[in-house]
Amino acid sequence: MNASLHPQILQRPASPALLDALAQRFGEHFTTSLAIRQQHGRDESPFDVPPPAGVVFCTSTDDVADAVKLCAEYDTPVIAFGAGSSLEGQLLAVHGGISLDLGRMNRVLAIAAEDMSATVQAGVTRLQLNDELRHSGLFFPIDPGADATIGGMTATRASGTNAVRYGTMRENVLALTAVLADGRIVRTGTHARKSSAGYDLTRLIVGSEGTLAIATEVTLKLYPQPEAVAAAVCSFPDVASAVDCTIATVQAGIPIARCELMDAHSVRAVNAHDHLGLSEQPLLLMEFHGSPASVREQAESVQAIALGHGGSHFAWADTPEERNRLWKARHHAYFSALQTRPGCRSVTTDTCVPISKLAESINLTVAEADAAGLPYFIVGHVGDGNFHVGYLIDPTQPAERELAERLNAQLVRRALALGGTCTGEHGIGLHKQGFLREEVGDDVLDTMRAIKEALDPKGILNPGKIFP
Amino acid sequence: MNASLHPQILQRPASPALLDALAQRFGEHFTTSLAIRQQHGRDESPFDVPPPAGVVFCTSTDDVADAVKLCAEYDTPVIAFGAGSSLEGQLLAVHGGISLDLGRMNRVLAIAAEDMSATVQAGVTRLQLNDELRHSGLFFPIDPGADATIGGMTATRASGTNAVRYGTMRENVLALTAVLADGRIVRTGTHARKSSAGYDLTRLIVGSEGTLAIATEVTLKLYPQPEAVAAAVCSFPDVASAVDCTIATVQAGIPIARCELMDAHSVRAVNAHDHLGLSEQPLLLMEFHGSPASVREQAESVQAIALGHGGSHFAWADTPEERNRLWKARHHAYFSALQTRPGCRSVTTDTCVPISKLAESINLTVAEADAAGLPYFIVGHVGDGNFHVGYLIDPTQPAERELAERLNAQLVRRALALGGTCTGEHGIGLHKQGFLREEVGDDVLDTMRAIKEALDPKGILNPGKIFP
Repeated sequence: MNASLHPQILQRPASPALLDALAQRFGEHFTTSLAIRQQHGRDESPFDVPPPAGVVFCTSTDDVADAVKLCAEYDTPVIAFGAGSSLEGQLLAVHGGISLDLGRMNRVLAIAAEDMSATVQAGVTRLQLNDELRHSGLFFPIDPGADATIGGMTATRASGTNAVRYGTMRENVLALTAVLADGRIVRTGTHARKSSAGYDLTRLIVGSEGTLAIATEVTLKLYPQPEAVAAAVCSFPDVASAVDCTIATVQAGIPIARCELMDAHSVRAVNAHDHLGLSEQPLLLMEFHGSPASVREQAESVQAIALGHGGSHFAWADTPEERNRLWKARHHAYFSALQTRPGCRSVTTDTCVPISKLAESINLTVAEADAAGLPYFIVGHVGDGNFHVGYLIDPTQPAERELAERLNAQLVRRALALGGTCTGEHGIGLHKQGFLREEVGDDVLDTMRAIKEALDPKGILNPGKIFP
Repeated sequence: MNASLHPQILQRPASPALLDALAQRFGEHFTTSLAIRQQHGRDESPFDVPPPAGVVFCTSTDDVADAVKLCAEYDTPVIAFGAGSSLEGQLLAVHGGISLDLGRMNRVLAIAAEDMSATVQAGVTRLQLNDELRHSGLFFPIDPGADATIGGMTATRASGTNAVRYGTMRENVLALTAVLADGRIVRTGTHARKSSAGYDLTRLIVGSEGTLAIATEVTLKLYPQPEAVAAAVCSFPDVASAVDCTIATVQAGIPIARCELMDAHSVRAVNAHDHLGLSEQPLLLMEFHGSPASVREQAESVQAIALGHGGSHFAWADTPEERNRLWKARHHAYFSALQTRPGCRSVTTDTCVPISKLAESINLTVAEADAAGLPYFIVGHVGDGNFHVGYLIDPTQPAERELAERLNAQLVRRALALGGTCTGEHGIGLHKQGFLREEVGDDVLDTMRAIKEALDPKGILNPGKIFP
């Protein structure tokens, strides 16, 4: 049995005494209603796992700490839940336990405009944060597509369209309030831009998928809203030409803010969904940030590079409305593609390679996908060397899922051979545990596991994730 | 007894059997010569500690692994040594043991120009790396002043003058080869720009001061050499005005590449040492990187801001020679200041605060230092909120050292109260262990210690450092 298709489920029923204790502590904020448990027992991954035994709607760090303490007392797993938009099964209760819904912890606690930072509760979403920032002259750039919570983005080390210029959650979390496996509340990092004070627990928790601690408050770097923004779309005869244009742009040191690839399948899907009338060829959707002069300079340089790589239909989106329309379409690519095959699910890949290897990685992938005959689409944060293939499978046809996973495995192994990673931004979850071992080797995996055991000796924090 | 003045020394003699085994394995690359041990038993800190029991000159990762394995067998401490430029006693053999000199591991292993990265052995120094990069069109920006090794800079999470634009070692190490406490060799991270594959061991090892693993090879991000560079120097009537100018520049979102403060004492010292003829007032030394148009735009904006804050004697250094002369002077500030009081040593502070708190932090510090009557100088990476006071003490006068440490403690406590850190870039070493506890609290310290014990159960990797 293929573990990446069928995760091992080790659920034990939760202790009635624990459920009683949670009901007593949390009252109506605790529920065992099946509908709500089911809603907290799935994400955007293709796995089917029975739901958690109960859900606590936390409203404060103290709530999280108390829930963890009670669960620790009963050796019962706890899984933090944000927006439910994770892609690799991070939320699924494979070992049973209690889901802690942090969605009601949705206050922006402080905006330190002078320091270009903000502290938010983990349940704040990225769109909400940017909405609250709109009069501050600042913005938070990390954009994974979904309107994920900052807590969830912290847990998966998310990135997305702006990472080529502004980095990922790794670079943009300054400090955390987090709950440890025994319910103690800790604060890591400071509000200073840099520090050499001991181990970097902030970055250890970022990307740990809720297995080392549960982040409840996050201090983030912000950036000045650029004086000028210009977006452009440019079509290419094939994916390879679009990728070559990207590589040349990055290697020229142009500080492009976004550089997104959509293949012809994606373009067709968003045309159908959003009535965009884009030329149904591979395209790059780009954005430039800076002073008016520097945006003009960047855009002219990239336009020249694009023309040299067969780019055509170069079109500017100068007004915020036009730009929003294009970016909304880009963000709809995933759901638009799902709608091209009613009832399908997507097996979504997430490799990231050094930019010089991107053409090799993506061109072979296109050839394999075309030969395999499964419907698919490709979108990519290509400025980072990261792209996603979505194989659109019929979930009632196990052979399709097997085929998609085989194609994914080929793609991952090629990425690893090229010096890359099996996951640029979605995390390991249930889906990539075998690939993690291939990527890092047993000694690194043992080291990670030693840290896990040191910080969570009972193994109650999101068990069954990351480690094969 | 004040622990920050007098570290606890727990040296035991090394086992003769271990010394024999090291001599057998390493031949003439192992020595117990007193002169060489003494040279490896001191750094730029003011502590006097007896030297290590022996020194292995490692030439490969395998050498490091074998030395660690032998020392592990005899429960004997190992301390990695690079250039000896650490400031907080990181190198000192307070628990005895063997120094592993990685200075001969000085090969640049690969320059991946297309991916803007390089992989180097840990003993490569930053100047050597930039020298080898000079025809590549790329450069490595992290500049802690001293010509430190990349391994040492990794261990202390170093930063320096360019960090305001390019980040610190935290942001610029992509991957590591490291030797664990039992001698196993691991590779962390990949050559891709981003990854969500499991725990971020790379950033856990960066800044761990050789207490979790010994980095032997480091893959670094590189940056395109800017098309245009301009440096400028501007004098101010007082430190407060220079700091206010810096804050306004950073808050305006100007991507200044370097923004360094020197107080009047520092300027006097470098004038005497390097015959610069700078106006003996506080000054900012700034650098701008970008296209010619963007450099002009940045420089004009900053010049206007500086004039608005009482700036005068604004002077450009346009040629590489003039720029080098200024930066050399900046880098000589520490040694120039030491020469103003023959026989003195410097007690050097390293706080970093959110930029909005920098004025409060530094102005009170100046007032306290002036009132205390000890000779001192201030230099600062003020764009990051980080500055250093060097109190020039007579090492034969314990009262001077006590006074300097008292002033440091006041400064640190103020920085912590302002949301900052006790160390922006020098690390904890022996000197700041008490401050680390004040900064992070017992629960975070316990968490760090749990990681230390999980990865180094025998406690042989640079014991006596970081933890109080």
